[in-house]
Amino acid sequence: MTTTRDQFIETANRLLEKQGYHATGLSQIIRESGAPKGSLYYHFPGGKEALAEEAIQLAGQQIVGRIRDEMAAIEDSAEAIQHFIMSIAHHVERSHFSAGGPLMTVALETAVSSERLNLACRSAYDEIKASFADKLTASGFPADQAAGLATFITAAIEGGIILSRAAHSGEPLRAVAGQIGWHINMAKQPFD
Amino acid sequence: MTTTRDQFIETANRLLEKQGYHATGLSQIIRESGAPKGSLYYHFPGGKEALAEEAIQLAGQQIVGRIRDEMAAIEDSAEAIQHFIMSIAHHVERSHFSAGGPLMTVALETAVSSERLNLACRSAYDEIKASFADKLTASGFPADQAAGLATFITAAIEGGIILSRAAHSGEPLRAVAGQIGWHINMAKQPFD
Repeated sequence: MTTTRDQFIETANRLLEKQGYHATGLSQIIRESGAPKGSLYYHFPGGKEALAEEAIQLAGQQIVGRIRDEMAAIEDSAEAIQHFIMSIAHHVERSHFSAGGPLMTVALETAVSSERLNLACRSAYDEIKASFADKLTASGFPADQAAGLATFITAAIEGGIILSRAAHSGEPLRAVAGQIGWHINMAKQPFD
Repeated sequence: MTTTRDQFIETANRLLEKQGYHATGLSQIIRESGAPKGSLYYHFPGGKEALAEEAIQLAGQQIVGRIRDEMAAIEDSAEAIQHFIMSIAHHVERSHFSAGGPLMTVALETAVSSERLNLACRSAYDEIKASFADKLTASGFPADQAAGLATFITAAIEGGIILSRAAHSGEPLRAVAGQIGWHINMAKQPFD
């Protein structure tokens, strides 16, 4: 059952992804969530920053859940990660370029202006990197190399989302998917 | 000589990079530019959107100029691009994680909300990709492969900047630099 509290978090999540932290006002969140007006400060006495923190945490958990599911579904790490990036391209296209990358606008906007939101974004990115790294170590990469590759993969995906949203096309993300698949395959040859 | 018009554009540029489009108000731009209050609408009758458009264009030109200079300074394409990414890591660190990626916050915020700013961001990204692609074709890559690699490189850099700003560390960008250098070297082996 979706509670009023969940409705606020999900609405905040969607608006933060689409338009960022600064453009998202509490009044819009209340309006679009359909929740009773007076209940926002009851559930989030810390106001917008506290609500955004939970929205970022939820977004991080959702991404990590999706990555772990996809990594479990395909055995080969290169193929699994390439397939995951292709699914993001599809998601960004389906949203007409308004979605994809629920963390990054907030991560950039708040990198130095809100310690609380910065830490929430940082920790979400750490979890995302760890979910790629785990797949890579399971397929034979040493932990150090897996960590470097996981950072690289996460960076290329985030940047690919920016380029795809700006270009109004899934092509940049598909280019990233192809290059990342090739990169992982080349990197794992020594221990194949 | 810096004109009042230039002062507005440079101030807008810096604020957009640091905090994004929505958080940047005209009053802050006027205040921080030190220009006379009444002159903003004289120079930019189109207001904030028109000023941001020119700021994005200037930011794009500056990045492209920097890339082309660095690509001309080092002959080997892998080394030149790796070196360029390391210099961004340094720049992001020096700014205490408030700078780096003057286009991306605006690109995300306005992808579907301002056609004018979306086109400005898109065209800046196209120029950036072209400046990497030119270096790659000059070092022997076929045009098609160079274009795909240039998109990938641009994506990895943009994402690396996000991760570095969020982590308050240049490490993610340095990981990207190392992986991109390796990737280009491996990709060019067939025609070495």
